[in-house]
Amino acid sequence: MKRLLSLILVGAFLALPVFALADEAAPITPDDVQNNLNFVWTLVAAFLVFLMQAGFAMVEAGFTRAKNACNIMMKNMMDFSVGALAFWAIGFGLMFGTTNGFFGTSDFFFSGASGDGEAWNYAFWMFQVVFAATAATIISGAVAERTKFSAYLVYSFFVSALIYPVFGSWAWGSLFHGAGWLEGMGFIDFAGSTVVHSVGGWLALAGAIVVGPRLGKYTKEGKVKPIPGHNIPVASLGVFLLWFGWYGFNPGSTTTGDTSIALIAVTTTLAAAAGAVAAMLFTWVKFGKSDIGMTLNGALAGLVGITAGCANVSVPSSVVIGLVAGVLVVLSVLFFDKIKVDDPVGAVSVHGVCGAWGTLAAGLFDSAGFSMHTVGVQLIGIATCFVWALGAGLVLFKAIDLVIGMRVTAEEEMTGLDFSEHGASAYPDFQTVHLGSGGMPGGPGGLSGQPVAAAEPVNGKPVTQA
Amino acid sequence: MKRLLSLILVGAFLALPVFALADEAAPITPDDVQNNLNFVWTLVAAFLVFLMQAGFAMVEAGFTRAKNACNIMMKNMMDFSVGALAFWAIGFGLMFGTTNGFFGTSDFFFSGASGDGEAWNYAFWMFQVVFAATAATIISGAVAERTKFSAYLVYSFFVSALIYPVFGSWAWGSLFHGAGWLEGMGFIDFAGSTVVHSVGGWLALAGAIVVGPRLGKYTKEGKVKPIPGHNIPVASLGVFLLWFGWYGFNPGSTTTGDTSIALIAVTTTLAAAAGAVAAMLFTWVKFGKSDIGMTLNGALAGLVGITAGCANVSVPSSVVIGLVAGVLVVLSVLFFDKIKVDDPVGAVSVHGVCGAWGTLAAGLFDSAGFSMHTVGVQLIGIATCFVWALGAGLVLFKAIDLVIGMRVTAEEEMTGLDFSEHGASAYPDFQTVHLGSGGMPGGPGGLSGQPVAAAEPVNGKPVTQA
Amino acid sequence: MKRLLSLILVGAFLALPVFALADEAAPITPDDVQNNLNFVWTLVAAFLVFLMQAGFAMVEAGFTRAKNACNIMMKNMMDFSVGALAFWAIGFGLMFGTTNGFFGTSDFFFSGASGDGEAWNYAFWMFQVVFAATAATIISGAVAERTKFSAYLVYSFFVSALIYPVFGSWAWGSLFHGAGWLEGMGFIDFAGSTVVHSVGGWLALAGAIVVGPRLGKYTKEGKVKPIPGHNIPVASLGVFLLWFGWYGFNPGSTTTGDTSIALIAVTTTLAAAAGAVAAMLFTWVKFGKSDIGMTLNGALAGLVGITAGCANVSVPSSVVIGLVAGVLVVLSVLFFDKIKVDDPVGAVSVHGVCGAWGTLAAGLFDSAGFSMHTVGVQLIGIATCFVWALGAGLVLFKAIDLVIGMRVTAEEEMTGLDFSEHGASAYPDFQTVHLGSGGMPGGPGGLSGQPVAAAEPVNGKPVTQA
Repeated sequence: MKRLLSLILVGAFLALPVFALADEAAPITPDDVQNNLNFVWTLVAAFLVFLMQAGFAMVEAGFTRAKNACNIMMKNMMDFSVGALAFWAIGFGLMFGTTNGFFGTSDFFFSGASGDGEAWNYAFWMFQVVFAATAATIISGAVAERTKFSAYLVYSFFVSALIYPVFGSWAWGSLFHGAGWLEGMGFIDFAGSTVVHSVGGWLALAGAIVVGPRLGKYTKEGKVKPIPGHNIPVASLGVFLLWFGWYGFNPGSTTTGDTSIALIAVTTTLAAAAGAVAAMLFTWVKFGKSDIGMTLNGALAGLVGITAGCANVSVPSSVVIGLVAGVLVVLSVLFFDKIKVDDPVGAVSVHGVCGAWGTLAAGLFDSAGFSMHTVGVQLIGIATCFVWALGAGLVLFKAIDLVIGMRVTAEEEMTGLDFSEHGASAYPDFQTVHLGSGGMPGGPGGLSGQPVAAAEPVNGKPVTQA
Repeated sequence: MKRLLSLILVGAFLALPVFALADEAAPITPDDVQNNLNFVWTLVAAFLVFLMQAGFAMVEAGFTRAKNACNIMMKNMMDFSVGALAFWAIGFGLMFGTTNGFFGTSDFFFSGASGDGEAWNYAFWMFQVVFAATAATIISGAVAERTKFSAYLVYSFFVSALIYPVFGSWAWGSLFHGAGWLEGMGFIDFAGSTVVHSVGGWLALAGAIVVGPRLGKYTKEGKVKPIPGHNIPVASLGVFLLWFGWYGFNPGSTTTGDTSIALIAVTTTLAAAAGAVAAMLFTWVKFGKSDIGMTLNGALAGLVGITAGCANVSVPSSVVIGLVAGVLVVLSVLFFDKIKVDDPVGAVSVHGVCGAWGTLAAGLFDSAGFSMHTVGVQLIGIATCFVWALGAGLVLFKAIDLVIGMRVTAEEEMTGLDFSEHGASAYPDFQTVHLGSGGMPGGPGGLSGQPVAAAEPVNGKPVTQA
Repeated sequence: MKRLLSLILVGAFLALPVFALADEAAPITPDDVQNNLNFVWTLVAAFLVFLMQAGFAMVEAGFTRAKNACNIMMKNMMDFSVGALAFWAIGFGLMFGTTNGFFGTSDFFFSGASGDGEAWNYAFWMFQVVFAATAATIISGAVAERTKFSAYLVYSFFVSALIYPVFGSWAWGSLFHGAGWLEGMGFIDFAGSTVVHSVGGWLALAGAIVVGPRLGKYTKEGKVKPIPGHNIPVASLGVFLLWFGWYGFNPGSTTTGDTSIALIAVTTTLAAAAGAVAAMLFTWVKFGKSDIGMTLNGALAGLVGITAGCANVSVPSSVVIGLVAGVLVVLSVLFFDKIKVDDPVGAVSVHGVCGAWGTLAAGLFDSAGFSMHTVGVQLIGIATCFVWALGAGLVLFKAIDLVIGMRVTAEEEMTGLDFSEHGASAYPDFQTVHLGSGGMPGGPGGLSGQPVAAAEPVNGKPVTQA
């Protein structure tokens, strides 16, 4: 009887909460609320990442010439728009559908809800589409000021629909079913130093190679001519917006609203700060003055650098990662100018090179302890990304070049893409000068000892002056 | 024994919650946490919608002339500020107070907390005030560059205090007590294609009609002269900020942090993307070049179009809604120019016309299945909005015109409102030109085959040049 | 017995779900979810506050001259970057470590997790670092256009590492252990009218005094020459971004995601609106035209004014607080110009003076009821802040002046800091004029009856014109 009694008591005890809840229509459980919180957090983070589109647009416009600003706005508006439709139709399924290890084969057009139920599928798509758009828009800066708008639309589609998602499926595809081969090896890339930034950066490199340098950028004698950006406050605003959006990019990659997001926010902040400080000091020492373009890119370099390891490195390590990235981006910009790859905004250096560094660093500074195996896997991921994105990019851009042409005519380029491509002018109320101005952020040119715009004319045709 | 046993059971039953509770000070329930989450979500969404004020300010300034940019900033800062005070004092009570079906009669100045308790009243007000401000600020663009600042302040007050809230009470007023007559019929307007955007758009139409076209916009021979906007990157930034804010506007309209917000984010994204792509392609085909102003407005058209049905249409339907909106906005801009309604930023087309389309589409594509009754109710709502907002607008603007005058003098307009109204200059460090520049986004003018700013002078007096 | 048995069975049945949950690893409790929600809310709020850095950068650049815009971007990027590293290394420990009442002595470099566990320490640091950066960046505007970049870096470090955190520990330090002496007295400063804004404002005053006025600002005859800002749309965007970020600043200061955030959002909104309206009307009456710079600063004044009392005053009180702040800021700007303290953006008036007003108002309008004791404590806090921040600031800036020099040479100042400090130009594609342009927001100068830029040249050397 005693035993029975205690059973009754235990039963009543345990049953009570159920009774209490049963009074109400559909009692909400802590798990339900946590699930709702995960939706809210993931979507708010996705919205912040969306705003990075504005950041990229401002950075790219600010670092290039006034005569191409409308074109850059069109490109940035379109790579998200075309990309979102492509990622809905094809990309999401390739990246996250049931995978054979190399690409997904379900969930095109949201057909067949994968994984955790339909609603989560939507939330997850929303978070992923802004990542896909980030990869696509990175390329835009590297091919700015001389690429045909039609060519731009075509490659935006293929990047968002095919090139980005396929690599993504290798590293992140298991989120629903199966596992990509890279993640199967233990590859660490929490928020996409490689998956997003290096893919975008190496595609940017392919684009810059195929389309060739801007007119007047490299003289016949082999000198590099700086083409300064036309609106530095706007470029700086862009960097602030990108940094802001990165708080969705990195912490949001938990896709879970829990306490782990705090460390990620801290490592992200300090890596960015360290990157900016490092680039500022390094250019000061190297060129005699601290350089604005390089410093802005230093902050971005720190952000790209911490993206892979933001959740698995310590706070002091994040500072080291940022410092290295800030120096690396300066050296890389100088290197690519030396080999005559004209990248008006430094996209290859910021996203490609620092993405690779960040991926390596996520292995080197792994809080779980250093292991040669982990570092080896990271190196495999880095190399695979380089081969895939540069290779696929060269094929894609060459194909576009053959079919519709990648580049506008020399006359169109000199006139500016705003007028030649869109019949528009970005600043019709202002007197503008066209003295070889444009965008080489952080290059040594702006520090040559005389006002940047006093360089001799490169492009003869003024657009907005009668 | 039996009695004892039941006593034990009852005791255990009753004591349990007390014991459980007694351990902690005030134990939080899942419902409490969900309620807190609802507050966090609704307020974060409200903040995003607030940022749309910056978006509208940038779009409007970018699409108009440099000589009026300070005035536009003042107007946008003031319509929110005056509007927030008016909505606190009068508007919120009219819209959400205890209603007789036609307007609310309680809750002015937060007197008498309605509904779900005082705290929620504050949260809900915060979410609603940014909607009211959106309706008010839409008008600003349509009457830009020639409206008296004092007239602007007066109508901003009346729109936020009376015209917007009264219509709002018909469609949404039941949120606290009773029901507006439109919602009683089953009118679907989840986030305000009609309640916010069409109300703002038709009021904008009334304003543009009463204040008349800008000097030089329509020649005596009946030709339309393009007046291009002075800062396209700033206008583009505005569109990105609006799109970002729309993620508060649409998903936030759940005012509940749950899983339903995911689908809304997806439909919102794809409709905007489809709108931008459609406008870009349509202008390319129609004018020979893709137009930047129209493309930007296409994205906004898609967003306005999906606002009513974002929660009750399928994902493919959202794409169709956006595509139609993107074409519709181009045709509408051309139409209003043809009938000589000068709307510098295309506000009537984006918000009025596409708001009507979106409201109809929410009926046509209703996931619950097509029904003539639903479509009929939608049409009644659309027509009611047109009659109310255009009618009340014409009365209001005519009254203001009689009492204090709607329009500045021709000389003030030529000099620019920055100097004539505020003694200021937006860009005193820059050499500006005044060659009929200004703002007709997406009009065919910019595509006429010669640089836009090379058009002959319309306004003689330069402001910033000695 | 049968009855008993069935009771047992029922009990077991009902208990089952509880058992079922227990099978899973670690069932989540409502407290866990609330804790997660607190993290999400606090971090999202911190991200919004981070965006205020962009707001400050835009306001400051817009209100000063084109020739110093790159320098201002560098400063704003660097005060956050240097400040974040300094606050990680030193400031956070001084402010929130175990305190002796006057400063903290633990938690440097996150060594020794304080308070609520390590994860919360990270979240709390993230929220606090953006506050520290706000205090530091306020100074930037007051010393703009003539301060050495190296001097700027040094003082940014000391403000974020020492001056701000020490005062902060007096008013807020008890969040982990012990209590600062001011909070021990009952000092009310919910979100930092004094702790952040007045500290920043009085430091700005010290900086402006030590560095001296810009060349040409005050004539030998004692006249004040307006130096108008070069980009009012950008300055206005900055104000919108600041207002947006303030929704993280004030409601986020709960660091708890609960229903109390709603009232705070409402008081914040209405105080800002009232401040903008008051400044607009007051300048209209005083100068004959409504002034854009003053109106923008009026909104900020309202925001600073409500920051201390946002959680403990009524809604009508918030409107009064904002109205007073909007008038006060105008009078204060005129006052500081009269005593020849050159503050290009009005930072001392907005943050110092209105911060003091807000702190007093939090006592005067305390919802808990008026008490002379409370008001007395508020006055002690205000006075202490003034003495500490102005005193420490004068010592710091004088020391920097002696060691490395606070000010650039007259020639560098005339050329512009963009070129002299960074070898750059903010707008190389534009024809710029250098007719004494610069930044005196809301001063009467812009209303003198002739176009602002028609003032006679102050600085001879054009930067961007050949």
